[in-house]
Amino acid sequence: MTTTAGLARFSINQQTVKQLSLPELVAACGTLGITRAGLWREPVRQYGPEAAARLFRNAGVTVTSLCRGGFLTALDPVERRHALEDNRAAVDEAAAIGTDTLVLVSGGLPPGSRDLRGARERIADALAELGPYAGERGVRLAIEPLHPMFAADRCVVSTLAQALDLAERFPAGQVGVVVDTYHLWWDDQVPGQIARAGEGGRLAAFQLADWVTPLPEGALLGRGQLGDGAVDLRGFRELVEATGYDGPVEVEIFNAGLWARDGVEVLAETVERYVRHVLEPA
Amino acid sequence: MTTTAGLARFSINQQTVKQLSLPELVAACGTLGITRAGLWREPVRQYGPEAAARLFRNAGVTVTSLCRGGFLTALDPVERRHALEDNRAAVDEAAAIGTDTLVLVSGGLPPGSRDLRGARERIADALAELGPYAGERGVRLAIEPLHPMFAADRCVVSTLAQALDLAERFPAGQVGVVVDTYHLWWDDQVPGQIARAGEGGRLAAFQLADWVTPLPEGALLGRGQLGDGAVDLRGFRELVEATGYDGPVEVEIFNAGLWARDGVEVLAETVERYVRHVLEPA
Repeated sequence: MTTTAGLARFSINQQTVKQLSLPELVAACGTLGITRAGLWREPVRQYGPEAAARLFRNAGVTVTSLCRGGFLTALDPVERRHALEDNRAAVDEAAAIGTDTLVLVSGGLPPGSRDLRGARERIADALAELGPYAGERGVRLAIEPLHPMFAADRCVVSTLAQALDLAERFPAGQVGVVVDTYHLWWDDQVPGQIARAGEGGRLAAFQLADWVTPLPEGALLGRGQLGDGAVDLRGFRELVEATGYDGPVEVEIFNAGLWARDGVEVLAETVERYVRHVLEPA
Repeated sequence: MTTTAGLARFSINQQTVKQLSLPELVAACGTLGITRAGLWREPVRQYGPEAAARLFRNAGVTVTSLCRGGFLTALDPVERRHALEDNRAAVDEAAAIGTDTLVLVSGGLPPGSRDLRGARERIADALAELGPYAGERGVRLAIEPLHPMFAADRCVVSTLAQALDLAERFPAGQVGVVVDTYHLWWDDQVPGQIARAGEGGRLAAFQLADWVTPLPEGALLGRGQLGDGAVDLRGFRELVEATGYDGPVEVEIFNAGLWARDGVEVLAETVERYVRHVLEPA
């Protein structure tokens, strides 16, 4: 049975049910006993960050993260300056909405480039600039390693080890990492790297989605509902909790099939799957 | 300019130009000065392994590898027995066709399983059985790590490090590894792992394809022609050659667009791309 106690750490990332408007999402959270949510910049900006902050605060729903900053790998100086400006704006929006975590998708290779190492170094350069700005505003930058299938076009940071190699160059209060099961489930180095993240105080966010096949064209919208795929979600939760992490467990699924359904129904199903496949003993 | 000397180590994997029959492939190799080819089991079986061996031998084309054995992760005992039988048949076919390298695609998770570690151990169990059988027939089993996007449904061995962890449990003459740029290009651990493979005498095959986006549905047929994508092919060749490897460099591209074109034209283009993007200095 779903209890409010069991859901205390559950957070719904709004992309999972992006068919719901912010007020609809808040109402559904109230109905289902959900007290945390992760938000995305575009809908927050449309609604107005201050108004959104009030909406969630008045409903007793804590905003656990804002997605997303990043895309810090441009070679072109103008593009690069725009990216840094946009990331400062994202930090401001995170502070306005009342979350301490800004998720970063680092960016892929610039057109024509084959230099992964150079791209990763440009991310580090950008973090050196953005980290203090974020820290002063009570926001931590959370580097999200994305699945290696996104290395060319979205994120040259593909493993938790790489994310930590980057984060550890900066103060833990400024730069952390995201553990997302969808991106990391295949990697046998993950248990050791989660422990490393925990020891260093770098575990900024923990996100869940399942891995299902076949991948759709472009691969982006192929994430699976919890329990539908290959990921040992319970095992991931145990690894993360073994570090002492007691923060939000955020479900973030991009899936065209889920988006085509009634959002409240999908949210209720997600809660049920979370209890069954993540919380309860096997 | 393409010279025969420059092509001395070039090998064309027949899947790259699978629209060509075996005799057409041999003829095109003669025209273009190609002296090596990697073959697949199905067309070889259709033609007859002994007849295919004669065809290639008489044309002076060396068979550099046979694809593929593997799929060794089944839990069901009957499936498992069939897989082992099929792999012994693949070894026999490799010996008949006159190659010393049988490429293994290890297999994904069995339906409903989420146990990657268990699946990897079952591969090791199978190698313990198949390795001596192969070794006695002058054939080496070559574990191919596949891109992590195939971990669920095709191959739970996702990194070169994992492949070497497996291979090193067995004699180097029985079990080696494949370095395929398409599968490994994103991994910052690859330079060290290629060196490890070289030091241990485990480098059984070196295959090339480029990484292009967006991925097509199912991801399988999205490999790029050399030079069209994100992979530093020349850098890979240099890493592999730094170990002392002087064996074949096999181009293996699965791409529906290339298959729709004239096979000889695609083969000529592949040679040209190889010279430009792999052989020549940047």
